Amino acid sequence: MYHHVKKLMYTVNISQPDPKFGKMLLEQFGGANGELAAAMQYSVQGLNCEDAARKDLLMDIGTEELSHLEVVGALIRMHLKPMKDDREAAEADPLIAIAGGGGVGLVDSMGNAWTANYLKITGDVAVDLRSNIAAEARAKIVYERLIGFTQDQGSRQALQFLMTREITHMRAFTAALESMEKPIFSVGIIQPTPGLVDQYFNGSTGESQYGETDFRGPWNESHGLSLVESEIKGGTGLDVAPYDPKPGTEKTSPVDSSPVGAYTGNAGKQIKERNSAKKAQAAKNAEPAA
Amino acid sequence: MYHHVKKLMYTVNISQPDPKFGKMLLEQFGGANGELAAAMQYSVQGLNCEDAARKDLLMDIGTEELSHLEVVGALIRMHLKPMKDDREAAEADPLIAIAGGGGVGLVDSMGNAWTANYLKITGDVAVDLRSNIAAEARAKIVYERLIGFTQDQGSRQALQFLMTREITHMRAFTAALESMEKPIFSVGIIQPTPGLVDQYFNGSTGESQYGETDFRGPWNESHGLSLVESEIKGGTGLDVAPYDPKPGTEKTSPVDSSPVGAYTGNAGKQIKERNSAKKAQAAKNAEPAA
Amino acid sequence: MYHHVKKLMYTVNISQPDPKFGKMLLEQFGGANGELAAAMQYSVQGLNCEDAARKDLLMDIGTEELSHLEVVGALIRMHLKPMKDDREAAEADPLIAIAGGGGVGLVDSMGNAWTANYLKITGDVAVDLRSNIAAEARAKIVYERLIGFTQDQGSRQALQFLMTREITHMRAFTAALESMEKPIFSVGIIQPTPGLVDQYFNGSTGESQYGETDFRGPWNESHGLSLVESEIKGGTGLDVAPYDPKPGTEKTSPVDSSPVGAYTGNAGKQIKERNSAKKAQAAKNAEPAA
Amino acid sequence: MYHHVKKLMYTVNISQPDPKFGKMLLEQFGGANGELAAAMQYSVQGLNCEDAARKDLLMDIGTEELSHLEVVGALIRMHLKPMKDDREAAEADPLIAIAGGGGVGLVDSMGNAWTANYLKITGDVAVDLRSNIAAEARAKIVYERLIGFTQDQGSRQALQFLMTREITHMRAFTAALESMEKPIFSVGIIQPTPGLVDQYFNGSTGESQYGETDFRGPWNESHGLSLVESEIKGGTGLDVAPYDPKPGTEKTSPVDSSPVGAYTGNAGKQIKERNSAKKAQAAKNAEPAA
Amino acid sequence: MYHHVKKLMYTVNISQPDPKFGKMLLEQFGGANGELAAAMQYSVQGLNCEDAARKDLLMDIGTEELSHLEVVGALIRMHLKPMKDDREAAEADPLIAIAGGGGVGLVDSMGNAWTANYLKITGDVAVDLRSNIAAEARAKIVYERLIGFTQDQGSRQALQFLMTREITHMRAFTAALESMEKPIFSVGIIQPTPGLVDQYFNGSTGESQYGETDFRGPWNESHGLSLVESEIKGGTGLDVAPYDPKPGTEKTSPVDSSPVGAYTGNAGKQIKERNSAKKAQAAKNAEPAA
Amino acid sequence: MYHHVKKLMYTVNISQPDPKFGKMLLEQFGGANGELAAAMQYSVQGLNCEDAARKDLLMDIGTEELSHLEVVGALIRMHLKPMKDDREAAEADPLIAIAGGGGVGLVDSMGNAWTANYLKITGDVAVDLRSNIAAEARAKIVYERLIGFTQDQGSRQALQFLMTREITHMRAFTAALESMEKPIFSVGIIQPTPGLVDQYFNGSTGESQYGETDFRGPWNESHGLSLVESEIKGGTGLDVAPYDPKPGTEKTSPVDSSPVGAYTGNAGKQIKERNSAKKAQAAKNAEPAA
Repeated sequence: MYHHVKKLMYTVNISQPDPKFGKMLLEQFGGANGELAAAMQYSVQGLNCEDAARKDLLMDIGTEELSHLEVVGALIRMHLKPMKDDREAAEADPLIAIAGGGGVGLVDSMGNAWTANYLKITGDVAVDLRSNIAAEARAKIVYERLIGFTQDQGSRQALQFLMTREITHMRAFTAALESMEKPIFSVGIIQPTPGLVDQYFNGSTGESQYGETDFRGPWNESHGLSLVESEIKGGTGLDVAPYDPKPGTEKTSPVDSSPVGAYTGNAGKQIKERNSAKKAQAAKNAEPAA
Repeated sequence: MYHHVKKLMYTVNISQPDPKFGKMLLEQFGGANGELAAAMQYSVQGLNCEDAARKDLLMDIGTEELSHLEVVGALIRMHLKPMKDDREAAEADPLIAIAGGGGVGLVDSMGNAWTANYLKITGDVAVDLRSNIAAEARAKIVYERLIGFTQDQGSRQALQFLMTREITHMRAFTAALESMEKPIFSVGIIQPTPGLVDQYFNGSTGESQYGETDFRGPWNESHGLSLVESEIKGGTGLDVAPYDPKPGTEKTSPVDSSPVGAYTGNAGKQIKERNSAKKAQAAKNAEPAA
Repeated sequence: MYHHVKKLMYTVNISQPDPKFGKMLLEQFGGANGELAAAMQYSVQGLNCEDAARKDLLMDIGTEELSHLEVVGALIRMHLKPMKDDREAAEADPLIAIAGGGGVGLVDSMGNAWTANYLKITGDVAVDLRSNIAAEARAKIVYERLIGFTQDQGSRQALQFLMTREITHMRAFTAALESMEKPIFSVGIIQPTPGLVDQYFNGSTGESQYGETDFRGPWNESHGLSLVESEIKGGTGLDVAPYDPKPGTEKTSPVDSSPVGAYTGNAGKQIKERNSAKKAQAAKNAEPAA
Repeated sequence: MYHHVKKLMYTVNISQPDPKFGKMLLEQFGGANGELAAAMQYSVQGLNCEDAARKDLLMDIGTEELSHLEVVGALIRMHLKPMKDDREAAEADPLIAIAGGGGVGLVDSMGNAWTANYLKITGDVAVDLRSNIAAEARAKIVYERLIGFTQDQGSRQALQFLMTREITHMRAFTAALESMEKPIFSVGIIQPTPGLVDQYFNGSTGESQYGETDFRGPWNESHGLSLVESEIKGGTGLDVAPYDPKPGTEKTSPVDSSPVGAYTGNAGKQIKERNSAKKAQAAKNAEPAA
Repeated sequence: MYHHVKKLMYTVNISQPDPKFGKMLLEQFGGANGELAAAMQYSVQGLNCEDAARKDLLMDIGTEELSHLEVVGALIRMHLKPMKDDREAAEADPLIAIAGGGGVGLVDSMGNAWTANYLKITGDVAVDLRSNIAAEARAKIVYERLIGFTQDQGSRQALQFLMTREITHMRAFTAALESMEKPIFSVGIIQPTPGLVDQYFNGSTGESQYGETDFRGPWNESHGLSLVESEIKGGTGLDVAPYDPKPGTEKTSPVDSSPVGAYTGNAGKQIKERNSAKKAQAAKNAEPAA
Repeated sequence: MYHHVKKLMYTVNISQPDPKFGKMLLEQFGGANGELAAAMQYSVQGLNCEDAARKDLLMDIGTEELSHLEVVGALIRMHLKPMKDDREAAEADPLIAIAGGGGVGLVDSMGNAWTANYLKITGDVAVDLRSNIAAEARAKIVYERLIGFTQDQGSRQALQFLMTREITHMRAFTAALESMEKPIFSVGIIQPTPGLVDQYFNGSTGESQYGETDFRGPWNESHGLSLVESEIKGGTGLDVAPYDPKPGTEKTSPVDSSPVGAYTGNAGKQIKERNSAKKAQAAKNAEPAA
């Protein structure tokens, strides 16, 4: 259950409206990496999360992002105001001016309607946390760029507030992933094919007209990797010997989400049972409060 | 410049077509976490990348994903074949059967046309690498689930091949990010607000009808975090003292992308100049080859 | 600022999961007339609303819809569970099963990602209230139809709860519109062209193969209307004498939103000034509390 | 069957092209509240309508909106013409200029392709009429705003013509809804839960930094409503006692559409039979003409 | 101006409803190659067409497609009817059943909302006619496949009618293109680079696991083409010598659309003037009738 | 399998960046008729093509278009560069500047994300070739218009290169279609209804306010057509006598794709068998190489 308190989480004030900057700011209201995307990604992941502790985390941050949506919306609304009756301002975004009456809408800086295609929700908590870490990094860089395009102090301070919170969330999601105590390249319950997983494939070779060449780097040789050249370039190519998947071979965590699939064998069943037992226990502990 | 060799990177064979499984597999052809999404995300990031070494990495993997698109397409086509003239099979996906003639299309398992809204491309290489690590984790779990829904050995082996490569790529992207030698929570050039960045905000409280409660975890107290209760629940709330953004305060890497924004001050200029000098040098070194 | 309390607004329980019904229910989670659409439409209208009283109404109901989103999400999640490991259940919605891990997603019953194109937000409160009345009627009929497709008592009762609230909201939005004391056909500040506005145009004539003919009804002759036949059918056609728009001729309300447009003349200016004065007064009254 | 007569329903002429205003006008050609949206919404509702009289109304107005699409298209085309060979004009909308050759396209003022997601079609005539009343109000306000952004007399007069027709249609749809003689809050065949339906829930409380507070209004206390405070704020919350839906309890009209759902009981069956009988009679009456 | 006559262009009757076939048929109502797409593509091309004769053609066929939309809609509606109250039928398309009340909607067979992204409208009549010829071929094959999935005679005959009309239109569009008397590979006003235009580039080589090899065919050697091997495979590659575009070098037709671009030189101006003169003459000839 | 060579197919250089022209160029990167659309349309058609020779053609050209995507991307990136730190440049496309960091993205010139809805893929090779001929004509005209909006020599030459290739491809697709030796109006396996197929229907009549009238042209009377007036205008209308589809009546080619549909009778079966035999023979011939 949600409750709304009219006080904004952060007080926004601007010296004078800059409607073209307001249009830029829409990126963080109805854009791909904006506050609604964050709020929805974390909250829906939370609804689906089987681990009550990480579910709490997801709901905490999902809810804070809703409060941010309101803050950035208030800031944008101040900047867009001239679109109501200045022809030149209105030309910069007629969708906002004419269809939206000069108010904020769930669109990005080029007028694209917000879509749930922006969201990354897999229902596997260890995977979702990685998506969230990346999402926070993206939101951080977008806020930083917006700061770089305005000199209005009130706007810069509001954006600094919002930008800061992304780093807080990035830390929290990282902590949550680390606390699962899985090896960083373990995902799910099936190990990758030995040998093949170590082969870095050199899919792009040669040299461009602008001096870019076929570099070597740690990504060719650390974390167990080694370089393989393509058959097309006379190399051996990848090891393509058929290999049967073996559910249950990957290292898992006690807080992993249930595996999905009818044919995951015992590995799938065991994790599901463990999760059910955990949930039953949580519900039992909670009973007096219910 | 691209070249196509007719030989598939991995030979696919199936024992008998399973059109409903073919429909599931479309998730990895034209779906949100599928091979086209991977190919396009990395290749377009590569086109934009200012660091020639990591650009090579992005083009290597982007190109390999194109080869995977072809492999998974060949696999799907074998499974979809009955949609051509079996009424019941056609009912499972009339868009494929009737409009597409029973072949693969750039749609997901529910017939949604592929859209570039799936992609995460910011032009900041350290951010893009995080998006790619998360993308590989998602692709891995989706392949694993597909394995869990078929008993056809040929299909399982092909999916195991493709799934394995996602982990290889995840390692490579991780190595590339690590090799930038930035602190893991440093993004861009502006530090978050001190103090505020450490405050974990408890946005969701209480207990549900199903036993879920307000948990504590490392995400409330590690990586410098500590818990703050909302004003709504009688807490102090976040520290909302205004704070001016200070471009140039964040730790950067010699391979950081250029900052974006007219008002990033010296920090922006210096990084841009460093990048230009690096590119000029690369072009000069390459001159005889051009 | 939003706060989340883990307790659902309505306790949902089902006797046994029905994944195909769960898929139907997605219509009210991520569908065109669903709870997210309602929450976003009213909340964003609220952000933009210049009348503090009706803004409060919009935020009240927008927030309640967020709580409904959570309720319907919990209900759906219970029904979808078999998609995790039952092949036949997974076939009904592979996007949910494979990509989403069997959890809820912001998609409708056919897997279409939620889009802000569903929303109707004009920034004119009297118009927005009409859109909301219609939206509630649509949500009511959709809930009723969902009730008509399940015999599970727990599901039916939960849907009855949610359906009831739509009628409550419909009453509230109607009251808010009535309290503006505008004639029901007055919108904005420019009167329609006299004469022309009374002409009902008979654009479809004749008789179909199935007995449908060119009916007469109150819509041809009440509310001042009278029927005009098309020139194509030998009629006089509409009165197309040019007529200049006259801003300020339409009946307005003291709580009308500001008109939009550079060339609205005095009418626009006067309403804007009245609105500014009202807002300043509200802020002043509130000062001690700020 | 449709027929097209080359004469425009309203003669448009402009003094000189204003390509940026032409771009604004696209809102009413391929935009969310534009003429294609209106034409399609009413015409498809008409195709589905079981009541032959209101079906005629829907086809009359749906067809008129097609004629309006043509009028507004002709007006826009005149304004866009400079995009063909003036670089600055083309910059305002390169999609129109470069891809569309400077002609009109089914896009809105920000280049978004028209989508059927804009439409509201439920197949329940009493609900659809409410959606149409709201749609006409939106179209009216958008035309008014367009008038407010041009001083070209020919354009203003054409927009006044189109704007006027929206009010005509709003009256006609209102008359059609009233003539169904249903109580204004009766939708479908299931009554909302008594008691619960009267509770207005105060989901947003407190006071903002800008003077907005927790107002009371007729929407809290008229039409049978009374205010309930949230548990979160120490209130009693909504009445959540489980209540079984009772199909057949809501007041219906002899021209209601058939209810939808396998488990609507006798109520559903009776209305369906009544509708079938009506249709059979209409077909019989029409026989000599067939 | 449009007029609607209630009589369908073709009388549809079915023996018994087949809701899954009805869902398939939606492909031709709200699908990518369906009747709305055809109607809108030709009608909007018509609105923009500067040649009055071909404009008439585009409006003739665009209008006929609207009549087809109505026919196919009536056919679908008959087949979808069981979705109203049969649970199993409703499961096949809950968007139609629950949200749409079992009626037709502007969606395709997998529930995707119709979008103007399906349309191909360039404003160059010689190009648009090619798009239309291809569109008719696509619609023909889709109708044929629908015929292949039903044994209901009434449905088959209705589809045969609609399918036939596509071939009629294909002939008419072909005649219109031929009558422009342009060489078949002449498009616009700029000739392709001599030499380079003759080089067929062999971008895909080798042999697949399934016996597909690097074939030769007339497409490598007729219409002036000859094969060039890629540098990647040791070939000479394409001739990449820089070549300046020369507006005015391509063969044009007296009924070509005006060229687009600020820098098309005399070629652009001359065609524009010719077009203006033609339009002025047409208007003059028509004066007595106006 | 794909391989990437870093050298661009065509060397691009510009004299100075023109960010608003860069934005226009996005039309050919992520736009409806751009290089990704071409690459994907031909490559996916190729994946599905049953005729190995034409499959080779589709893969040749599909791959070349990927190389063009890279060329046009490099050109655009040069032009967009000022968006990184010039406020005015950034205003022209904030999605590129702020979200994309000033690099290219898979969007068109108005910021619309690329979507597979742009593609025309039917799985019938004779139909797909027609779609490709039209696609090349569209791409040609768009390149020509882009040339018309810049005076930068480097850009014009690069666009001339890309434009030229479209005509090369148009010739190749035409040759491939001609080599199938089907009559130009034969599509699929079912003949259109005799008589009806010859009737050109005059759906748009009369005269407009601007001098456009009801023209006659070769499209009314060549290729076997003759004009029929609508019943609405007192004509005889189309011949609507029911006619049963007869699969197997249309002239086919030995390289036709398999027909689709359960009820295509012997015609369907024979073509499928012929295709299977051809594929088996191809695989056999290729065996030693496998």
